Amino acid sequence: MPAPKALFFDVFGTCVDWRASVTRAAAAYGLQPGFADDWRARYQPQMETVRSGARPWTVLDVLHRESLDELLAAYEVDLTEEQRAELNLAWHRLDPWPDAVEGLTRLKERFVIAPVSNGNIALIVDMAKHAGLPWDVVLGAEVARAYKPRPEAYLRSAEALGIAPGEAMMVAAHNDDLIAAGAIGLMTAFVPRPTEHGPGQTTDLRAAGAYDVVATDFVDLARALG
Amino acid sequence: MPAPKALFFDVFGTCVDWRASVTRAAAAYGLQPGFADDWRARYQPQMETVRSGARPWTVLDVLHRESLDELLAAYEVDLTEEQRAELNLAWHRLDPWPDAVEGLTRLKERFVIAPVSNGNIALIVDMAKHAGLPWDVVLGAEVARAYKPRPEAYLRSAEALGIAPGEAMMVAAHNDDLIAAGAIGLMTAFVPRPTEHGPGQTTDLRAAGAYDVVATDFVDLARALG
Repeated sequence: MPAPKALFFDVFGTCVDWRASVTRAAAAYGLQPGFADDWRARYQPQMETVRSGARPWTVLDVLHRESLDELLAAYEVDLTEEQRAELNLAWHRLDPWPDAVEGLTRLKERFVIAPVSNGNIALIVDMAKHAGLPWDVVLGAEVARAYKPRPEAYLRSAEALGIAPGEAMMVAAHNDDLIAAGAIGLMTAFVPRPTEHGPGQTTDLRAAGAYDVVATDFVDLARALG
Repeated sequence: MPAPKALFFDVFGTCVDWRASVTRAAAAYGLQPGFADDWRARYQPQMETVRSGARPWTVLDVLHRESLDELLAAYEVDLTEEQRAELNLAWHRLDPWPDAVEGLTRLKERFVIAPVSNGNIALIVDMAKHAGLPWDVVLGAEVARAYKPRPEAYLRSAEALGIAPGEAMMVAAHNDDLIAAGAIGLMTAFVPRPTEHGPGQTTDLRAAGAYDVVATDFVDLARALG
């Protein structure tokens, strides 16, 4: 296997534990533990309205806020504008998995490390400051103006670094992300996060594709990549 | 003065000593000291072809390469394709001014620090790895698809961080950059680099506008911003 020049990281679920962090933020407003799951359940359908072309490019902060307003109505919970704006920022302050900062710090010594996430730039930058994620550069959906798994999200991120798709390795805890990246020529690394969706998780427990690397966590990934 | 949320840095000349670095790279091909100045002299006219709309968005690596080819013809020096590609990468490997890394590292503790440069993302990322510049995120011309001093270059960089123009402070060694940024509401900080153009420099030796901060170097800037 040739060494990649850059590592592209999925963020929600792969680098950070969105479910525990958002659950905690929601609890401060008296919202029950399932609220974070319900909020996240609206993520793919919301992005699909952009991917399909039904609406123009819209950043994730706006999609999150729309979902939040719908969900609060369904829950019959009324929060002020200020409270809604604050709760929406929960996605900017997600805590990292325990191995994430150490693993990324090691990987950064040898590779360009970049989030290739569907999160917008402001969200990813705030999260990096909060969680200590030492990115070299923020790539992904807002730079590409396309949501994963659209090919443009990966291809324009590679193009921004002046590298070929095959010189980038996508790192993710999600098989659909890696299968999409692999199909257009990126290298791939699977790092399972078996409690991303809580103790009863049934999806993405193991690699469902022929990836270049399968690692137990980011420190193990750093070891595997030398 | 309210504290800014993010600091935007000019890069060529403000963070790094392009002239010494490019002169050294050119000397390896037998090119005389003035070559770096002649190459840089084509920088503004080349970007102007994009700013004016005469040609579509084109990244700086491509503009640099076109200038290099023209200049080698004028110098009657013939280099191979491989040598030209390699020499063009001299702009990716510029050395920092002595205070730059220490100053940025201190400023990063309190602020989001981002290059808002006319350099393309690949160039800025390679330079950051080479020079140890600890950026939080790469903004600027390629993200905005507009070259400074066009307002979009500054405004879209602020928008990407989800902040108002007045919450960003532009840091530069060039009065024209700061005057353009200040005119659209950014805060401004001048840090003179009196040898950017060599020992006989006559431009940008002192602040020519009413800036929020004037500092002697980046460590002094960190002190001034608390």
